[in-house]
Amino acid sequence: MITPPVGSPSSLGFAAHPSPYNFPNVQYPQIESDSRVTFRFRAPDAKKVQVSIVNVPFDMIEGDNGVWTYTSAPQAPGYHNYWMIVDGAIVLDPGPQAFIGYGHMCNCFEVPEPGVDWYELKDVPHGNVMIKNYFAKTTNSWRKVYLYTPPGYEANPKTRYPVLYLQHGGGEDQRVWIEMGRTNLILDNMIAEGKAKPFIVVMETSAVGPPASPGRSSEVPSGAGLTPGASRGPGMLGIGGPGGGAYGQFMIKELIPWVDATFRTIADREHRAMAGLSMGGMQTAAVTMANLDKFTYIGLFSGGAAIPRRAPSQTTPHEPAPLDLKTIYNGQMANPAEFNKRVKVLFFSCGSEEYPDALKKHQEQLIAAGITNSYLYISPGTAHEWQMWRRSLYSFASLLFK
Amino acid sequence: MITPPVGSPSSLGFAAHPSPYNFPNVQYPQIESDSRVTFRFRAPDAKKVQVSIVNVPFDMIEGDNGVWTYTSAPQAPGYHNYWMIVDGAIVLDPGPQAFIGYGHMCNCFEVPEPGVDWYELKDVPHGNVMIKNYFAKTTNSWRKVYLYTPPGYEANPKTRYPVLYLQHGGGEDQRVWIEMGRTNLILDNMIAEGKAKPFIVVMETSAVGPPASPGRSSEVPSGAGLTPGASRGPGMLGIGGPGGGAYGQFMIKELIPWVDATFRTIADREHRAMAGLSMGGMQTAAVTMANLDKFTYIGLFSGGAAIPRRAPSQTTPHEPAPLDLKTIYNGQMANPAEFNKRVKVLFFSCGSEEYPDALKKHQEQLIAAGITNSYLYISPGTAHEWQMWRRSLYSFASLLFK
Repeated sequence: MITPPVGSPSSLGFAAHPSPYNFPNVQYPQIESDSRVTFRFRAPDAKKVQVSIVNVPFDMIEGDNGVWTYTSAPQAPGYHNYWMIVDGAIVLDPGPQAFIGYGHMCNCFEVPEPGVDWYELKDVPHGNVMIKNYFAKTTNSWRKVYLYTPPGYEANPKTRYPVLYLQHGGGEDQRVWIEMGRTNLILDNMIAEGKAKPFIVVMETSAVGPPASPGRSSEVPSGAGLTPGASRGPGMLGIGGPGGGAYGQFMIKELIPWVDATFRTIADREHRAMAGLSMGGMQTAAVTMANLDKFTYIGLFSGGAAIPRRAPSQTTPHEPAPLDLKTIYNGQMANPAEFNKRVKVLFFSCGSEEYPDALKKHQEQLIAAGITNSYLYISPGTAHEWQMWRRSLYSFASLLFK
Repeated sequence: MITPPVGSPSSLGFAAHPSPYNFPNVQYPQIESDSRVTFRFRAPDAKKVQVSIVNVPFDMIEGDNGVWTYTSAPQAPGYHNYWMIVDGAIVLDPGPQAFIGYGHMCNCFEVPEPGVDWYELKDVPHGNVMIKNYFAKTTNSWRKVYLYTPPGYEANPKTRYPVLYLQHGGGEDQRVWIEMGRTNLILDNMIAEGKAKPFIVVMETSAVGPPASPGRSSEVPSGAGLTPGASRGPGMLGIGGPGGGAYGQFMIKELIPWVDATFRTIADREHRAMAGLSMGGMQTAAVTMANLDKFTYIGLFSGGAAIPRRAPSQTTPHEPAPLDLKTIYNGQMANPAEFNKRVKVLFFSCGSEEYPDALKKHQEQLIAAGITNSYLYISPGTAHEWQMWRRSLYSFASLLFK
């Protein structure tokens, strides 16, 4: 496994600058030279203004001309969501770009990581990001999928490629692995350096069928579901069930056959991987462990490891219990030798600020139980956030289809 | 010219429903059965809340539990921008999707047009929307371009296609002709019905080089540029200049050669078109009329016609002055017979609520002056808005490459 270079504190050193996701004439959020972030927001008649950074609200201070200001503690490198709270209303600043997170639109900022460029746009051959509409017969609905095809896909019309199915987290959709995750740039760079094989990435939304509860109700005012307590962690949705649950069945019956019919894939289990972040990691575990005739590579980023939790809403799992190979992972490890033959990579990761001790213990237990193909990556200095998932994709991609 | 079907008032009849751009659990904006739009917004501690619909603010009324409500007058079919003003702060509701408009992020809603489905997702062969990064040597910068390739592009690897360069309006970027304009759906549907030839569409951002004025200033608080008086109309930017201005030179030296080298285009003037909306129409006129060795088809939607204006900031032009063929359109019409040979389609359009009389007069003048290939489309019941530009694309596309 190749793990991604990480910027060290001593390499820090950049000038204060507007977040790169701001529109051209928008100065704030401003990333300070010590990775603090300054927010400014004009609300001349408001009594109270807060900025909620990764779902934690901070009071802003009113200055001249109704302009409110707040400078945060230093932030970890990478992409972070935020929003504004103006006199109790959860709102967005129209100045920076907005992307999906927590089931609604969010503002965002990006903190640089000096000396590290594996997720930046570089002068290497670039693959394509493609947006495709397709009709799903099994759900009788139109769906939109994002795909990445590697450099050379068009120039080599006889070459066929392996496929990674890559899942978003709770409250997100098929856009995030491109918009925040930079999957295309990471893989372009890795392929150019020979650190990853070229493969296709399929990014779909795991919601199938009608909208999830609480459903569309005329009593729900716009914005009313956007409570600061909303969680993006695991446990948000019922996941799993026979055949890997509703999404697993959708993948097996609809998505995988459509991808194999539409793109030049190598359509067998040896050339098919699935990975996901947070809730998407839980789905990946549920789908793959119910369908090992379809998948050989499994990536569980910040979710999906067989570690008990205190409560469904809780991201941080308990200390692992003794392994029961007959029941965990849908019983697929009951015969470790058989599992080792079928699954070439079972990849776990979390941030150093998530549950590294529990995940390390789980990894030791798997090895002690005779599981030989389990890999572990702990992302230094990160919590449940995009920089951790970018790094996890990098580490996982280095193991695929080799 | 084939013009698009338009819903008639007698065909109106749909149930009240959430705007299709809302997230699944978000009820408002709600489109009422008579095309009024109801907004609800929770702002428990605010003193005043307004909703700004297409840049016109309306007072909302406070009800129970801090929920504010407003129901608009009937809205024209199609896509409309809006935002919220909470105690003087211009903000977005996080519940609906947000897209670029007016140089910042905007909320949006879409009003249906019963009986009309030429811009809906239908069961026809679909082309691809592609997002590509490329390095522009002439500006020494990375750029992002959106492209549409028609159905069959991948299945027929020896076929080459004509190209339409399609420009956004002021305060917009390369995303809008897909996200609001539905270019891919419109062309998929037209190609399936034999109403348009298959062609490639290239959508790039017309800003080249450093950000436009007022530039990044540490004195500009986030959101401060977002005055309700900001205009998206023509006259926002200096357009034109030698060779079609900075963007014209960028297209000629960088974009067109890159597109022709990267995609299977027919790389000659007979198979190259350019069109744009509003400011993009003005740019189209400037670029094409300075480079008629490169373009044969020209589309000017709500902008770019040689009709004088009262002031640069004004969308609605004056009554046309007598034509001076020696000076208008960069003097290209000085010899009408020569112009008729070179330009197969010169297409003008505007909404019935824009400046139809002036544009009709201009068209009569062109015909009287011996210009034989000028086309005019007036979109019924629409102002300076997306439904007009969708209809213009439809009408223009029906004339291309035939």
